[in-house]
Amino acid sequence: MTTDRPVPTFDDDVDGGRKLCLICSKGSLDMAYPGLILANAALGEGIETHLFFTFWGYEIIRKKTMANLQFTAVGNPASHMPALAAALPGMQALATRMMRRQIADLEVPTVPEMLDHIVAAGGHLWACRMSADMMKLKLEDLHEGVEGVIGATEFMEISAGAQTLFV
Amino acid sequence: MTTDRPVPTFDDDVDGGRKLCLICSKGSLDMAYPGLILANAALGEGIETHLFFTFWGYEIIRKKTMANLQFTAVGNPASHMPALAAALPGMQALATRMMRRQIADLEVPTVPEMLDHIVAAGGHLWACRMSADMMKLKLEDLHEGVEGVIGATEFMEISAGAQTLFV
Amino acid sequence: MTTDRPVPTFDDDVDGGRKLCLICSKGSLDMAYPGLILANAALGEGIETHLFFTFWGYEIIRKKTMANLQFTAVGNPASHMPALAAALPGMQALATRMMRRQIADLEVPTVPEMLDHIVAAGGHLWACRMSADMMKLKLEDLHEGVEGVIGATEFMEISAGAQTLFV
Repeated sequence: MTTDRPVPTFDDDVDGGRKLCLICSKGSLDMAYPGLILANAALGEGIETHLFFTFWGYEIIRKKTMANLQFTAVGNPASHMPALAAALPGMQALATRMMRRQIADLEVPTVPEMLDHIVAAGGHLWACRMSADMMKLKLEDLHEGVEGVIGATEFMEISAGAQTLFV
Repeated sequence: MTTDRPVPTFDDDVDGGRKLCLICSKGSLDMAYPGLILANAALGEGIETHLFFTFWGYEIIRKKTMANLQFTAVGNPASHMPALAAALPGMQALATRMMRRQIADLEVPTVPEMLDHIVAAGGHLWACRMSADMMKLKLEDLHEGVEGVIGATEFMEISAGAQTLFV
Repeated sequence: MTTDRPVPTFDDDVDGGRKLCLICSKGSLDMAYPGLILANAALGEGIETHLFFTFWGYEIIRKKTMANLQFTAVGNPASHMPALAAALPGMQALATRMMRRQIADLEVPTVPEMLDHIVAAGGHLWACRMSADMMKLKLEDLHEGVEGVIGATEFMEISAGAQTLFV
């Protein structure tokens, strides 16, 4: 896959300002929010912020999926739901609706709204090239704010001097 | 929710000393230990250490759950247990007992003991405000060593200049 | 357990060069690759790179398992497969074969090959002592490139001044 927008160039020099890079690798509703919330908080503090979406994290920026991320209690003992019950048909949809409502009750924006906020606040969204190739996705399949599809090497350059978290 | 203890203030200045911040976001027995063990090791090296508990990570500091974290093999192929067998009633309790015994055999303290050690060694425990609001929990529901319930913005201030890991 | 090779010593001084430390804690096929790919990219950029394998991450460096890591869709809603279907006998093997082929189609090396590349490029592989003790494994059970079995304290020393990611 090739990028459809000009390939960005990066400045290796660190200017002393604080920088945060978040690698978002999970595609479930509960694991999408931590990265988005940290990014939002960092931007509010004037920190240069980059999000790099890879593997399952692509769900967060795919136009087709970003408004419909799912939560399952299966495999998560912290949810206090027995695995067999959690695996029954309809349970994932129910658990997702409940979590979505809890989030809305706190007046936390939806995932696409969070992405819009992050971009409006000057945050940078990047998509992983290898993941795009695996899933046969193009830049136009992704949230409009994604600046480019880049490789791990380019990410290493972007993240020079940054606090870097793998979510 | 409001904090019941005085809201802490933070110093943005980095004094050149080494600082470690761990975001603990998982609530299973196997994923609770890595953060606690790293914190303990860091404190032994004289490193300023902060743990920020968020989402499922709340299980680690809730009085009601911290002594009873669970492990499941469901969804974890590294456990080498077929998913259907791992999901049978009683299997999570069995797998948890086995892991707990393996940990005790190595003379590794329990989760509440680890938290006590960390606090005694000068480590800082913080609870995420959004998670508290979602779960309708108060500071008194949490381990006595938790210093406050703080937002992501305050966490960004605490973590200035720190090595920051998302666990 | 004791290490069979000389115990390494570490230099606490940071020489100003960039350093990356990756803690690999998961043992599934899909979560093994992100750490290996980042390490590979970092080495290509001349960055000093250390990988510390702990808990389930041991699967990646165990001779017995490293060529046969598994992927399951169970517990991962981003896979878009119903949990009960994903848990059926044979489904994990099928999902693993499909992912392995997708990776091979991109000409991405296998997990053991990635480890060989990383070592050949000067990357450092370390195994967690507590995990070795839990699983009763010795250095000879692990990939030949693993330099030693070390504790969390030694890891804190290695990671001084490093960008450190928990994968």
